[in-house]
Amino acid sequence: MTENTIVARLIRNLPGRPDVVMGAGDDCAVVRTARTARYDTLLKSDPVIEGVHFEKAAPPRAVGHKALGRVLSDIAAMGGEPLWVVVDLVLRDARDARWATEAYAGLARLARRAGVAIVGGDTSRGPARELHVFAVGRVPRGTAVLRSGARAGDALYVTGRLGGSLAGRHLRFEPRLNEGTWLRKHGWVTAMMDLSDGVGTDLPRLLTASRAGARLEQAALPISAAARGVSSRDGRPAWQHALGDGEDFELLFTVRGARAAAFERAWRRRFRLTCNRIGTVTTRRGAVEFEDQYGNVGPLATRGYEHFV
Amino acid sequence: MTENTIVARLIRNLPGRPDVVMGAGDDCAVVRTARTARYDTLLKSDPVIEGVHFEKAAPPRAVGHKALGRVLSDIAAMGGEPLWVVVDLVLRDARDARWATEAYAGLARLARRAGVAIVGGDTSRGPARELHVFAVGRVPRGTAVLRSGARAGDALYVTGRLGGSLAGRHLRFEPRLNEGTWLRKHGWVTAMMDLSDGVGTDLPRLLTASRAGARLEQAALPISAAARGVSSRDGRPAWQHALGDGEDFELLFTVRGARAAAFERAWRRRFRLTCNRIGTVTTRRGAVEFEDQYGNVGPLATRGYEHFV
Repeated sequence: MTENTIVARLIRNLPGRPDVVMGAGDDCAVVRTARTARYDTLLKSDPVIEGVHFEKAAPPRAVGHKALGRVLSDIAAMGGEPLWVVVDLVLRDARDARWATEAYAGLARLARRAGVAIVGGDTSRGPARELHVFAVGRVPRGTAVLRSGARAGDALYVTGRLGGSLAGRHLRFEPRLNEGTWLRKHGWVTAMMDLSDGVGTDLPRLLTASRAGARLEQAALPISAAARGVSSRDGRPAWQHALGDGEDFELLFTVRGARAAAFERAWRRRFRLTCNRIGTVTTRRGAVEFEDQYGNVGPLATRGYEHFV
Repeated sequence: MTENTIVARLIRNLPGRPDVVMGAGDDCAVVRTARTARYDTLLKSDPVIEGVHFEKAAPPRAVGHKALGRVLSDIAAMGGEPLWVVVDLVLRDARDARWATEAYAGLARLARRAGVAIVGGDTSRGPARELHVFAVGRVPRGTAVLRSGARAGDALYVTGRLGGSLAGRHLRFEPRLNEGTWLRKHGWVTAMMDLSDGVGTDLPRLLTASRAGARLEQAALPISAAARGVSSRDGRPAWQHALGDGEDFELLFTVRGARAAAFERAWRRRFRLTCNRIGTVTTRRGAVEFEDQYGNVGPLATRGYEHFV
């Protein structure tokens, strides 16, 4: 059973409320605090668990950075502004107190830069060192960017370069908050999500929400130096690492095809960060076609990180 | 190093924001979504971890109930109304999927009764089965009941009966939402918190926040049938179980001494649940005196549950 299947089962028939704009199934939930509120509220939680999201030897400050960065990346993917976070900390015993202090220092450093307040949480004993970060953000009413807005003909983009994140970037990535806000505010994006499990796993999620398909072009994939490094050692093509390694924490988004050229110019004027068109949205619902470097087109086989396989 | 010491270290110098009314250190954080908002927002997270908060054999529906109940109990302790929750689920592998479905059923049942929407979360692999529930609630602006409002002369109360929770009540307790809201709305309470680690550990926390002391009366402690049962088996006095077992998830609160009699009458008219005066707030900052059944007074030695000893 895959993570998608488990989650799909769990979120069937969850209790709702009329003030829930978007429940489970997007990067964040969207709720409305009052009928007249100027902002919608974004809610999201993400874990980092020793042995799963970081290795024992990882510097604790970097673990704290990642713990907050993950959830800020989700808020960025809605075009939102993060406000407050609460942290659930799990430690094995009192000897982890020093580790916890360092992890919190990493958390606090990123929080300050992002203008986020850490307003509390719970500390508990458990079988491994873990941080569960819950974030509250906001977005002007009715403007949260969902996964469901992509249409056939839209151009498909990713920020940054993909793959090989395990070599270090998974602990040091920058959540794309400025980019996400800009994309939302200027009305460029039709759908957006952040890349946590890799394009191979995450793109189908965006397409499912949008009831569409896509064609990806191998030659267009922005491949990180780290992905090329891993590829040279394990012999798997670098593009497979770019699609499947996961934990890129870049933005995956779509722009109307007719606006693609204007968008690319505006992006280059605004950001130094690379942003690449990797394909096009199609009408072939659920299908991801892959065009290799020789122009052959077939179904995409590479899938990203799966928690439960 | 105790849990209190670890937490005190971690929450020093956390990044804040001007819209944070109350950060780490109370049952919930209190934040203000807009300068003109009619309500303040309450934020809180709590974990339930296999081997710590529940045993392997615990019915998964009860575990789900407890996971949500813990955090609703914290919102009740602020006098608040819960609105939305996000769940971080940790599973060991895909074979836990059925367990997760049952746990979610328990969560969803309590959520429906409490009028709470479950709006999403994350599912991850990890070393044990865990649920981390993050809740958002609200309270009319400026009315959140903090731990810090108790003054010398206030009467000290607890709802329900204490001790022996491990015999079953820790999985089946009712968060005291109606009671908490009523106490806040009618202006009875000066300070309030929920009992998660036992009066012996939690009362000093309330007193520290209020810069006060207290005198407890052994004869006044409402002792649960379960605490008497454990006492008859292990030979420790039942009142020690009542003070130290923890996980009562009852409300501990203070009422101005002059209003105590009127409060008690009003409570009995409104609720069937027992509510008992267990002592009085004193000026002896930090000191908890204990008056035993023979009228001898000494410092309280029994402490509640400690995660990190």
